[in-house]
Amino acid sequence: MKLQSNRYGKARVRVFKKILQDGVHVPKELDVKTILEGDFADSYTKDDNRNVIATDSIKNTTNLVAYKQLGAETEPFAIALCQHFLSKYSHVASVTVETLERVWERQTVNGKPSGTNFVATGKGIPWTRTVATAQSIRTISGVKELVVLKTSGSAWENFFRDELTTLADTNDRLLATSLTAWWVYEKAPASYAAANASIIQAMLEAFSTLFSPSVQATEYHMGEAALKACPEISEISLTMPNLHYLLIDLAPFKVKNDKELFVPTDAPQGWIEATVSR
Amino acid sequence: MKLQSNRYGKARVRVFKKILQDGVHVPKELDVKTILEGDFADSYTKDDNRNVIATDSIKNTTNLVAYKQLGAETEPFAIALCQHFLSKYSHVASVTVETLERVWERQTVNGKPSGTNFVATGKGIPWTRTVATAQSIRTISGVKELVVLKTSGSAWENFFRDELTTLADTNDRLLATSLTAWWVYEKAPASYAAANASIIQAMLEAFSTLFSPSVQATEYHMGEAALKACPEISEISLTMPNLHYLLIDLAPFKVKNDKELFVPTDAPQGWIEATVSR
Amino acid sequence: MKLQSNRYGKARVRVFKKILQDGVHVPKELDVKTILEGDFADSYTKDDNRNVIATDSIKNTTNLVAYKQLGAETEPFAIALCQHFLSKYSHVASVTVETLERVWERQTVNGKPSGTNFVATGKGIPWTRTVATAQSIRTISGVKELVVLKTSGSAWENFFRDELTTLADTNDRLLATSLTAWWVYEKAPASYAAANASIIQAMLEAFSTLFSPSVQATEYHMGEAALKACPEISEISLTMPNLHYLLIDLAPFKVKNDKELFVPTDAPQGWIEATVSR
Amino acid sequence: MKLQSNRYGKARVRVFKKILQDGVHVPKELDVKTILEGDFADSYTKDDNRNVIATDSIKNTTNLVAYKQLGAETEPFAIALCQHFLSKYSHVASVTVETLERVWERQTVNGKPSGTNFVATGKGIPWTRTVATAQSIRTISGVKELVVLKTSGSAWENFFRDELTTLADTNDRLLATSLTAWWVYEKAPASYAAANASIIQAMLEAFSTLFSPSVQATEYHMGEAALKACPEISEISLTMPNLHYLLIDLAPFKVKNDKELFVPTDAPQGWIEATVSR
Repeated sequence: MKLQSNRYGKARVRVFKKILQDGVHVPKELDVKTILEGDFADSYTKDDNRNVIATDSIKNTTNLVAYKQLGAETEPFAIALCQHFLSKYSHVASVTVETLERVWERQTVNGKPSGTNFVATGKGIPWTRTVATAQSIRTISGVKELVVLKTSGSAWENFFRDELTTLADTNDRLLATSLTAWWVYEKAPASYAAANASIIQAMLEAFSTLFSPSVQATEYHMGEAALKACPEISEISLTMPNLHYLLIDLAPFKVKNDKELFVPTDAPQGWIEATVSR
Repeated sequence: MKLQSNRYGKARVRVFKKILQDGVHVPKELDVKTILEGDFADSYTKDDNRNVIATDSIKNTTNLVAYKQLGAETEPFAIALCQHFLSKYSHVASVTVETLERVWERQTVNGKPSGTNFVATGKGIPWTRTVATAQSIRTISGVKELVVLKTSGSAWENFFRDELTTLADTNDRLLATSLTAWWVYEKAPASYAAANASIIQAMLEAFSTLFSPSVQATEYHMGEAALKACPEISEISLTMPNLHYLLIDLAPFKVKNDKELFVPTDAPQGWIEATVSR
Repeated sequence: MKLQSNRYGKARVRVFKKILQDGVHVPKELDVKTILEGDFADSYTKDDNRNVIATDSIKNTTNLVAYKQLGAETEPFAIALCQHFLSKYSHVASVTVETLERVWERQTVNGKPSGTNFVATGKGIPWTRTVATAQSIRTISGVKELVVLKTSGSAWENFFRDELTTLADTNDRLLATSLTAWWVYEKAPASYAAANASIIQAMLEAFSTLFSPSVQATEYHMGEAALKACPEISEISLTMPNLHYLLIDLAPFKVKNDKELFVPTDAPQGWIEATVSR
Repeated sequence: MKLQSNRYGKARVRVFKKILQDGVHVPKELDVKTILEGDFADSYTKDDNRNVIATDSIKNTTNLVAYKQLGAETEPFAIALCQHFLSKYSHVASVTVETLERVWERQTVNGKPSGTNFVATGKGIPWTRTVATAQSIRTISGVKELVVLKTSGSAWENFFRDELTTLADTNDRLLATSLTAWWVYEKAPASYAAANASIIQAMLEAFSTLFSPSVQATEYHMGEAALKACPEISEISLTMPNLHYLLIDLAPFKVKNDKELFVPTDAPQGWIEATVSR
């Protein structure tokens, strides 16, 4: 038997930083996962832990780097955390840092933005994945579970038909999805936060303004729009489950339901993926 | 042995209504639970189902009443659904309708509010509970899991101390909670939606503007503010788990963490409840 | 405005005890919630915390009482924890302790029960609620989310019909539920663990052996069986959502699905409740 | 811009089959995800759906193949479903079928195994992934979230130390994990169910009987044991989060907690991965 591959690290390291900026607090909350690859095989196969940086120490390091370098943007922190491990430990060959963010939206109090009060919002979860070696670094940013709905402008027609097809064509359906998307930074933008916001906004505008002949086409055009909005990214991947809203049959009650009342469903879901590049 | 009490109904009846209003779509999505009490004991003890309105029929009814009467506000629909059962079936003595809402926020497209595009937001889940009999009706509205944070203006001092106390006093801590609150309508407001919004806004303003000497005091003042904001409610109950953010000790690394970096925790949680009335 | 009622405490205090018994380890893992009522109003209305036992101290107490008194059975610990607060603090009027248990099942290793190895099982979650004052104590035990299925011996016929009924009668359907039940101890049994096990076994035997003309009847007979199995309980409450398994229509593909293939669904659910007493 | 890659299908197709075998019912419940790759790009980029098999039809197909070919073992069904798509549609290049199983354990009634009554168990979730093209087929089976605990025989010592290390060595700690593992079938075993069971049993025996100098070593030996137990698999991958149980400090209360009372934690988690091959 042989150890084909191995990696390890610390997951769910939660940090919250109260950043003072221009006289107000900027809250920053991340859930960080750091995974190391390198010269660790002996801990698996020879009961020799001497090379293993304890996962507790990885947590300590995450905290310390967060204290020193975490700001309002996630990506520079993730890069710094990768570089810390690579530069400090020669037996670490590769570091992967993944983050999930809890977004705190500034509250409006008496008509003005508060300096110290926030509400958690649920419009998608920002996430990042940075993979670094001595030679290279690759930063991916994304959003998970951004749930959007079109109540008009969506069709599904002229698809493949055979004896296993029972679905009728429709030129007017509800379209809802829980968007997960991630994009690869070819080079660093002036601001990751601004770049990410422009990408998300571009995807939402495409979703909203374009007629949808299929989830596939909508997804592709959302990817295109993102690439146009941000020159620093080289490609974008999207996953769009189709959260079906089914028309409720009221005919047994002598009522014609003219595309007014639907039952939202979780299962089954259509599942549409695409990667769009330049 | 005897059947002490019984009730039954249908839970998780999901409906989505596409309401056309002033030329734009208003989306309305509820998860409805309807529970009946009445002359149903024989189905439990005598294998006699003749009085039992099938839970499938309760779902049909929910759909039909939603089709006919569900508008942008939840409470009138819940009341109508209760009344439907009471007026139609003499052997139904009491009806309880509970709703959870998925809030769809209108998207801004090209700087203008879209008529047909929406994003799900996660700032708390609106819910209602209406209980009706032939003699009375009681409507409760509320919000669940509205997560808020104060990064300043919160203390916890001069509390009870004995040999089981290890917590130090603090005059500056983070305060985060996931607010659940519900309020009882003594009479119907002009608009339930407007009344609910004013209550939530009043609670958020109190949370944000008042110094917090304890979760208890903050909770009480939030309740007071809600009662002041809406004359139609007679009482309000609040549950506020204390989502502790613990200061991370960086002293082992020769760093003084001056209330900048915290670890968010889920367990354990302080748990503070109050009911405030006029 | 007035403070109508108030209570507070600590939730999600997780403890794991490694009990040494007859030479082997007995693992015991609880999630404990302790809620106090008493002379605490001034913390809400007068910014006076002097009476308030910090929720952190409640956690400390939970830990200390667990260290000293938690054994293989939950209920004596919950009672001891209540009594600790009542006897130690005269301004505490009432204590409620709720527990959820993670059950660790002893592993079989080389055909023998291991003294130190365990696997978490998911056959329902044991829970308790104890409410104590100086004058009285009431202990409730129960189980949550015990998911069971009958593939035969279940019908739903001869129920109420009107123009809102579309469901057909059936004398052969699948019956699945996620049982939640709780029972009130009138007096302490010789062993709570043994009593709880006998109650659950009695409910499962009733579910399994009796023909089901309705969820209602099955639920009632399960309650009866529990009361017969354990003389120390005075009443039992059961909640049984009906997890519908719907026959899949294969007729469009020229296949007759003779009650073989079903789609499990989560929403909507029938919802059947009963309390049975002596 | 270009469409770099694309795939689509149907997720969360839930099926339950009541199989009659030797006079008793064998319940089989799966959640199936089927993903297709092939000549579908025009639906993304040219609004041309003519090649797209509707995800609704993929659901129909899943149901029909389940009706005809789903038995007590999952893998032959997954393979059949892949082959159905590949043989029927020449424009499908690759099919991936993933399954999650809800395990129904046969109940014992009156001391005998019941033919028609079952309880859902939570000892890990069986899952499979089958990927097929015209040229090849690869079947992976696995288990998710199998939660196990050692209360003795686990150490963590002599690991890497520097100024970021604060964790002490220990030669006696609790070790808990939620095992996720998957293994690749090089060739079909006589019975997938028997092979999977023997692999899981081998991993549990290794976890239980071997002293653990690290999660890494334990994980590696569990992989070795699995490979020894089943000659048909070529490699196995394991992910073992370290669900830390932390000793509770009772010293402030003059009590020495001699490794008896611990607090279970969810965050942070150590995260240990390995792939072991022949």
